[in-house]
Amino acid sequence: MIATHLQPSSGLPILLVEDNPVDIDLTCRAFARNRLANPISIARDGEEALGLMQRWEDGELPPSLILLDIKLPRVDGLEVLRHLKTHPVFRRIPVVVLTSSSEDRDLLDAYALGVNSFIVKPIDFDRFVETASQIERYWCELNQHPS
Amino acid sequence: MIATHLQPSSGLPILLVEDNPVDIDLTCRAFARNRLANPISIARDGEEALGLMQRWEDGELPPSLILLDIKLPRVDGLEVLRHLKTHPVFRRIPVVVLTSSSEDRDLLDAYALGVNSFIVKPIDFDRFVETASQIERYWCELNQHPS
Repeated sequence: MIATHLQPSSGLPILLVEDNPVDIDLTCRAFARNRLANPISIARDGEEALGLMQRWEDGELPPSLILLDIKLPRVDGLEVLRHLKTHPVFRRIPVVVLTSSSEDRDLLDAYALGVNSFIVKPIDFDRFVETASQIERYWCELNQHPS
Repeated sequence: MIATHLQPSSGLPILLVEDNPVDIDLTCRAFARNRLANPISIARDGEEALGLMQRWEDGELPPSLILLDIKLPRVDGLEVLRHLKTHPVFRRIPVVVLTSSSEDRDLLDAYALGVNSFIVKPIDFDRFVETASQIERYWCELNQHPS
């Protein structure tokens, strides 16, 4: 299966594009600790993420927010971002890069490609939980999403 | 003067594009209540905002974040957004639409043009202060900006 619904709920569906199992587990646990319960789907590499775009084209419900790692196998995160942000419809989905990389080149390229926000993952777990909470509250409560 | 620096500090410079004097006052007071002290410049219509882009072209330091109203005299906010997001360099500046409009058309157009985030201003002042605080913490503390 390309995507796994971890927490089906009435919240906004979030897609996490991340290959590292430890980071997937950490992100899901961090989100689970917060009071909002958004269903999180996972794509484990860039090719899976592009495959999902094809499914959305075919009528599956796209996510309301995408959390995108940059260093991904097969097709990297910036290439996924390019596909998303040049698509006439899916370009409207907010994309937050959530990465361990703080390389200037990645930051500049991501903004040039139209990323909505760029966040460097804290290494400390408690700080990561707090970051996940801020991301969830900002994008799922405060920000208005296109339907 | 096109822009007024209200709080010079070492924080990230923010540009507020807003024509309504009450909303300008409210936004500046809401930001002033929070612990971060980012210098806020004001452009009072879309033409002033486009004039600022020309100054940045000429070497003036551009802001790190733009808070943009949609309903603006002379040149409207979506047109300013279009200019910003098609510029090869300034497209990298995060733009948050901060508006009283919750019209679906504005939301869809803003996302299609590449807005980073879209927030509807709460009418209640205390809620607006909280919203301003969340915007400031998210964009000035958590989010990584291109330099």
